[in-house]
Amino acid sequence: MKYLHEFWDGFEPGTWVNEINVRSFIKHNYTPYDGDASFLQGPTKRTTDLWEQVLELSKQEIAAGGVLDMDTKIISTITSHGPGYLDKDKEQIVGLQTDKPFKRALMPYGGIRMAEKACADNGYTIDPTVKEFFTIHRKTHNAGVFDAYTNEMRACRSSHIITGLPDAYGRGRIIGDYRRVALYGVDRLIQDKIEQKATTRSAMYSRVIRDREELAEQIRALEDLKKMAASYGFDISEPARNTKEAIQWMYFAYLAAVKEQNGAAMSLGRTSTFIDIYAERDLKNGTFTESELQELIDHFIMKLRLVKFARTPEYNSLFSGDPQWVTESIGGVSIDGRHLVTKTSYRYLHTLENLGAAPEPNLTVLWSTRLPENFKRFCAKISIETSSVQYENDDLMRFTHGDDYAIACCVSSMRIGKEMQFFGARANLAKCLLYAINGGVDEITGEQVGPEYRPITSEYLDYDEVVKKYNAMMKWLANVYVNTLNIIHYMHDKYCYEKIQMALHDKHVTRWFATGIAGLSVVADSLSAIKYAKVKVIRNEKNLAVDYEVEGDFPKYGNDDDRVDEIAHDIVHVFMEHIRKNHTYRDSIPTTSILTITSNVVYGKHTGATPDGRKRGEAFAPGANPMHRRDSHGAVASLSSVAKLPFKDAQDGISNTFSIIPDALGKDDKVFVGDICIDDEMEIDFDCSTGACASPTLFEGLDTDNI
Amino acid sequence: MKYLHEFWDGFEPGTWVNEINVRSFIKHNYTPYDGDASFLQGPTKRTTDLWEQVLELSKQEIAAGGVLDMDTKIISTITSHGPGYLDKDKEQIVGLQTDKPFKRALMPYGGIRMAEKACADNGYTIDPTVKEFFTIHRKTHNAGVFDAYTNEMRACRSSHIITGLPDAYGRGRIIGDYRRVALYGVDRLIQDKIEQKATTRSAMYSRVIRDREELAEQIRALEDLKKMAASYGFDISEPARNTKEAIQWMYFAYLAAVKEQNGAAMSLGRTSTFIDIYAERDLKNGTFTESELQELIDHFIMKLRLVKFARTPEYNSLFSGDPQWVTESIGGVSIDGRHLVTKTSYRYLHTLENLGAAPEPNLTVLWSTRLPENFKRFCAKISIETSSVQYENDDLMRFTHGDDYAIACCVSSMRIGKEMQFFGARANLAKCLLYAINGGVDEITGEQVGPEYRPITSEYLDYDEVVKKYNAMMKWLANVYVNTLNIIHYMHDKYCYEKIQMALHDKHVTRWFATGIAGLSVVADSLSAIKYAKVKVIRNEKNLAVDYEVEGDFPKYGNDDDRVDEIAHDIVHVFMEHIRKNHTYRDSIPTTSILTITSNVVYGKHTGATPDGRKRGEAFAPGANPMHRRDSHGAVASLSSVAKLPFKDAQDGISNTFSIIPDALGKDDKVFVGDICIDDEMEIDFDCSTGACASPTLFEGLDTDNI
Repeated sequence: MKYLHEFWDGFEPGTWVNEINVRSFIKHNYTPYDGDASFLQGPTKRTTDLWEQVLELSKQEIAAGGVLDMDTKIISTITSHGPGYLDKDKEQIVGLQTDKPFKRALMPYGGIRMAEKACADNGYTIDPTVKEFFTIHRKTHNAGVFDAYTNEMRACRSSHIITGLPDAYGRGRIIGDYRRVALYGVDRLIQDKIEQKATTRSAMYSRVIRDREELAEQIRALEDLKKMAASYGFDISEPARNTKEAIQWMYFAYLAAVKEQNGAAMSLGRTSTFIDIYAERDLKNGTFTESELQELIDHFIMKLRLVKFARTPEYNSLFSGDPQWVTESIGGVSIDGRHLVTKTSYRYLHTLENLGAAPEPNLTVLWSTRLPENFKRFCAKISIETSSVQYENDDLMRFTHGDDYAIACCVSSMRIGKEMQFFGARANLAKCLLYAINGGVDEITGEQVGPEYRPITSEYLDYDEVVKKYNAMMKWLANVYVNTLNIIHYMHDKYCYEKIQMALHDKHVTRWFATGIAGLSVVADSLSAIKYAKVKVIRNEKNLAVDYEVEGDFPKYGNDDDRVDEIAHDIVHVFMEHIRKNHTYRDSIPTTSILTITSNVVYGKHTGATPDGRKRGEAFAPGANPMHRRDSHGAVASLSSVAKLPFKDAQDGISNTFSIIPDALGKDDKVFVGDICIDDEMEIDFDCSTGACASPTLFEGLDTDNI
Repeated sequence: MKYLHEFWDGFEPGTWVNEINVRSFIKHNYTPYDGDASFLQGPTKRTTDLWEQVLELSKQEIAAGGVLDMDTKIISTITSHGPGYLDKDKEQIVGLQTDKPFKRALMPYGGIRMAEKACADNGYTIDPTVKEFFTIHRKTHNAGVFDAYTNEMRACRSSHIITGLPDAYGRGRIIGDYRRVALYGVDRLIQDKIEQKATTRSAMYSRVIRDREELAEQIRALEDLKKMAASYGFDISEPARNTKEAIQWMYFAYLAAVKEQNGAAMSLGRTSTFIDIYAERDLKNGTFTESELQELIDHFIMKLRLVKFARTPEYNSLFSGDPQWVTESIGGVSIDGRHLVTKTSYRYLHTLENLGAAPEPNLTVLWSTRLPENFKRFCAKISIETSSVQYENDDLMRFTHGDDYAIACCVSSMRIGKEMQFFGARANLAKCLLYAINGGVDEITGEQVGPEYRPITSEYLDYDEVVKKYNAMMKWLANVYVNTLNIIHYMHDKYCYEKIQMALHDKHVTRWFATGIAGLSVVADSLSAIKYAKVKVIRNEKNLAVDYEVEGDFPKYGNDDDRVDEIAHDIVHVFMEHIRKNHTYRDSIPTTSILTITSNVVYGKHTGATPDGRKRGEAFAPGANPMHRRDSHGAVASLSSVAKLPFKDAQDGISNTFSIIPDALGKDDKVFVGDICIDDEMEIDFDCSTGACASPTLFEGLDTDNI
């Protein structure tokens, strides 16, 4: 292909000229910034006016009971709605999901019942023709999944040993490379997809046919993307010419994704350093001032804050809010050794000051020891002020994902445009332990859910016997779990395919098959209690173990005590090995995560008493956290326990949600961000809507042998 | 399972009691009939009245330009319409495709454009909401296929080297075992399907998920079937109690199929001997008289004659009419040696006398040398009177398909409920020969359609060179052809799955991957001309071979001359071997057929001049027929050439359409049906709407070594 001077003048050429390769463009053109935040500009009048309008609408929305307006007839597609505005004259970046701000779109592809319920619960009634059509003629993801589920899968779902499955709504966790639209324009992307389609394998095995059909869908989605942009007055068939267009093109691409999909996590990617290249050029050329650039970014971020979906109260209660996980990954370090912080990294975070704190977009700093000192300080300052920044360990993830990955949802890392994830919810390992003890009978319902293995009948639990039975039960659970997910992802591809998002991926995509673990610290402590103390079983009239009495003390996970930390390590490893034994859909690579953020409460509610002394219905600890109040040796010891978990067995992410208040620190521990000591001045609260918000210090000096 | 006395009293038990097995029921209970036709009864007053009503409606339909009424909004499903009647008081067997006789249903699953065009061409306008929905949200078979087609496939389709592909409408050629509904009732069939679903493989590979989803669809279709019957006032959850119910139950099942699918051939199966078991019992019990039984069958056949679909004029022109191929297979011989002719075999054929001749249902006699003499005479008599009977060679097909197979469409044989077919249209082997000569360039358009092999440049064609190049070109064609069909059947399963028909199949179904050959005799004669005469190539200004001059005479296929008959034999064998080299969808077994019945005219139209002296655009001979007027040695010699074709390479059927008039017979040949000599009394015309109507004598004394 040829260098497009009209659009790219001033950009250093590279591989990116000859192929779709945004990383190459960034590498050749970005300007690392080591300075401080003094260049940043406050909000413009237009920004303040627009944001006040948003706040007013928010107020009205709350007053209206949570939803201001809903589509009940128009089915959302990329082109389903005409243009919509907050205030056309003031907005520098335009585009809404529907024709009005705060109006929620109707998205039934994932499941008509969910769409109907989301309407009904908010006082709206779905159009009967739409309902009929999606019930009789147009099957949904949800209907497909339930057609294929086995009775065992349904039972596991009902008993909550497998839980949070994306079988009634969009799976999310796929990040389109929205930057491509800005850099190349849509026409070149279409051309690329046409060439991809022309070069599939020629023997028409079903998988080849599926690929070809998907490519056709992707091409159609790109055509629709152009149409949608045209309705706002923009021709995005060609590349963007400046920062404003780059942001606008990119946002249209993202907007198309959220018009088409209401996935549980619709993340944005890693856009700030990309945009910075345009900003640097425009500053140099005098196209925009710093204030104008900040305004563009403020308006862009404002738009991302407006992303809303029609959800049910149950969904919101599971996630403790109405999150979209519009995660944007900022910073990190390049594999050539240069950090990737630019002025626009600052500008993105600065929106938290210009617009005020907010959980969305989920601004996530890819933390490295090698980030510039000034930027570390700035992050700490913004965190202190807004409690709205998430941190992830770039030094760990760079090893497997390189330097152009981003975070989907809260911790799932993937190379942008090259990797995607099949989101997989969680297996309840604590309940699995109880099944091991009760021979597959659910401790709450008394029903046989798991296999009819021999239960444990002794009065006191024997460690070796429990571990052996637990291993067998984990093997069973991993099998049912993976097969359940195979069905979900098969049906999602069939009935709710992410056309525009996948159009912004390469031809050959690596697919991660994500699984998840809940209740890790409960199991670790339970096995520790069985091993190091005495655990007596309390059985009910049906001889079912329903409670436990722990006699004596035992090491507890979260105190940097290898005796129990090793148990936690082994559980993750063994379960993941069982996962790996199973066929996974579409050549996907199995991973797991330990990241229940808020849903740990729900999981605990549905799980009986456990041998660690936890009572029936008590919440689990979130993610990989130690159980509440059991980490008695201070924050650093607690963090050390978490850090021992094998990342290579849980590459989809390990989350430790952590509130640092001065008292949480052990008397002799000092936690530093750069050289700022966390003392009384700083209080970082976990923000449940943005997911994992770990202290940046977690990653300092971490051993990477476990990668 | 247990013997259901209430319904089955008087029936001899067998395997059929314990599993779904209609063949076992027939084997244990049918009464072979060797007598003559003297027991048959004429039409009742009700029958005559109803049939007059049908004739009147037919007249109105013709007056209205071919279509009397069409649905433009209600999308046809098993339960989409309320009950419809001709005359409720007179009809003994009820049920219509829509709520009114002669009203054509709207069936867009195969393709919305085809459905729209079928309406438009008949002066109706499809509802815009329906169109929008099936364009944007509910993909059709047709849309799926064209998304996956390669450019090469499209080019082959446009140039007519592959033609008649079922890519815009239902593929047809699947026969549900409609008898099961009568014998077992729907509830037991549902129970059976639930058990099948519970016993799929448990590792959720995509093919297992697909099976499970299809079983769920089948179960839903059976539930719908019950609802549809209930709307007519019948509870078909339990088995039929007598002949009337047996016919009614069976017809409801067939009706559900034609409400759901508008396949090119919606055949009925092999029902007469099954029904006869009920009739014998009812005669013995005095439940029905002979006249009443005949009336039930007359009314049933009348209903089958009412089956209509919304078609386009192009479709009707390809098939020379508006055929449904409601093929019913009658007679044949059991593998235990008993013939399968019953009184009801007579009763079915007798409808041609009671209601008059008609192309539908396509009554097909499975001919065997061992059919009873009386029945042979009766068939001959009905053929002479009505020209409406098709004959197929049971002695050949019984070898591969046993004794409970039926014919789908005109020649495709399959075990009922155990085998199905992926219908595959045809490859134009005559055009393929021209591509071999022209190096893949189409002789009509001048476009490069096939691979850029080296063309033949000599003035006179060399046999060895042509055969070598032809072989290579057939290999290419077989590859594109099979892969095109792979796409079609993948998409048909995905977007237009035959729910109710497959619900009336076993769990493990053998799938035939049907292909087809057109232009066989043209190629045989062309190669013969090249070998035994001299063929000069006429090239146009672009050096493209566009015509041929044959110097001298050559043996022609159709004269029992091994020199050319061997060539014909080898073409079929070699092409089939090339077909077999390719992956075929869903573990299907490749077969081919030589059965263009009427479409041979269209294929010829799109094919340039051939080396046998046939001019550009001239029709091919139909099926395996010799070219018109080239079979100069009389009928028997002509038939002998056809009989040499390898059935084992063309198991989907070899069709020879053949008009016997006395002059067609060689002077010394006498053709007998039983001991009736075909002389001036008999004139069997080929009826283009019923497909292949071969002379029964074709099969007498045929060598079965080639099976």
